[in-house]
Amino acid sequence: MTIKMYDLAGAEPERRFSPFCWRTKMALAHKGLEVETIPWRYADKAAIAFANWDRVPVIVDKNLPVVDSWAIASYLEGAYDSAPALFGGKAGRAFAFFVNNWVDGELHPVLARILALDILKHLEPGDRDYFRQSRETRFRMTLEAFCADRQKHLESFRRLLEPLRSTLAGQQFLGGESPLYPDYIVFGSLQWARAICDLRLLDPADPVDAWRERLLDAFNGIARRAPGYW
Amino acid sequence: MTIKMYDLAGAEPERRFSPFCWRTKMALAHKGLEVETIPWRYADKAAIAFANWDRVPVIVDKNLPVVDSWAIASYLEGAYDSAPALFGGKAGRAFAFFVNNWVDGELHPVLARILALDILKHLEPGDRDYFRQSRETRFRMTLEAFCADRQKHLESFRRLLEPLRSTLAGQQFLGGESPLYPDYIVFGSLQWARAICDLRLLDPADPVDAWRERLLDAFNGIARRAPGYW
Repeated sequence: MTIKMYDLAGAEPERRFSPFCWRTKMALAHKGLEVETIPWRYADKAAIAFANWDRVPVIVDKNLPVVDSWAIASYLEGAYDSAPALFGGKAGRAFAFFVNNWVDGELHPVLARILALDILKHLEPGDRDYFRQSRETRFRMTLEAFCADRQKHLESFRRLLEPLRSTLAGQQFLGGESPLYPDYIVFGSLQWARAICDLRLLDPADPVDAWRERLLDAFNGIARRAPGYW
Repeated sequence: MTIKMYDLAGAEPERRFSPFCWRTKMALAHKGLEVETIPWRYADKAAIAFANWDRVPVIVDKNLPVVDSWAIASYLEGAYDSAPALFGGKAGRAFAFFVNNWVDGELHPVLARILALDILKHLEPGDRDYFRQSRETRFRMTLEAFCADRQKHLESFRRLLEPLRSTLAGQQFLGGESPLYPDYIVFGSLQWARAICDLRLLDPADPVDAWRERLLDAFNGIARRAPGYW
């Protein structure tokens, strides 16, 4: 039975920009699982209320909902243990959790300052007020002030990728010779940017960009085929 | 046959402060291997010239030298594969490499600005000129200027530990339920600080400090028994 997944979308239903949803889509593809994605907007809280949750990704597998990208990855690894491993064992899972925390805690706060106005621009009109109000409350400033000095944040972002860059000097993927879930965690953040931001966040000469290109090609190019700017 | 290890020492031969040597000592203990450490100073290049290397750790196992903490960990994992795993499989090794790069590239530059003058203070007189000159050339400023505004760097250091802190909210060690090599990589940096710096870099209420305490107790307290301030 095809898995259903609620996937954050912009005004164009095919413009899917959630970094967390990208983690899940790549994880599903890695496991070789079929998925039917349902475009979801911030205003559609009612559509996922059945899962007792208010954010995406939400998947429905065998009529049961599973919520939250990390919990979904853990669920898939257990429920589909004969499919290719996402974590590569207990140690792999432990370190994937570290990468999850590194991306959410270090990369995303800087990315948000580059992308927040681009998100706004791509949202369905009904989502825009919600997005502006909730984010301006969280950031305690206007989105315009939050995204001022984008060049500085872009430089910070590129610098923050240094541990990934050094790692790619010694191996093809964070997972080693082939990608594992930590690759999809970081890649999801770049898909977020690619979907909505016409500024290339990576220099094409950056080894991180070469790694990104390999993942854009993975699984018959599901990530590359998605609407995006670069 | 007992493994020999050249281990960076201060004026007091038992004051061992190299973060890289601590990685190796913890890795050897994890594998249950006996080691005889030989105190080594920067001036002792001749003592390790047989290994075609000029830095420590250097180990000698079965009459063969192995150099560089990462290469030593990889060597031990292969040569002693029936002893407890340091990496926990291929994925674990791939992520350990990421943690190695995160610590060397992100934590150490900030730690150096907290610790450089403390290192100087603990060195054997014959090492002091070498240390000051080589570091001042590298940093392009005096050690005193490099270590000014220590409070700012301490705050940066504590903030940089956030991905570790978040990870410890979900598991006891970076390795999961028990420590693996990535734990020793980060712990080695704290042993560096503990050996020479009388300023406590961690708040005792910090979960990172609780994790450090668990590692101080590991392997019959080899890390706690080493001379240090906290």
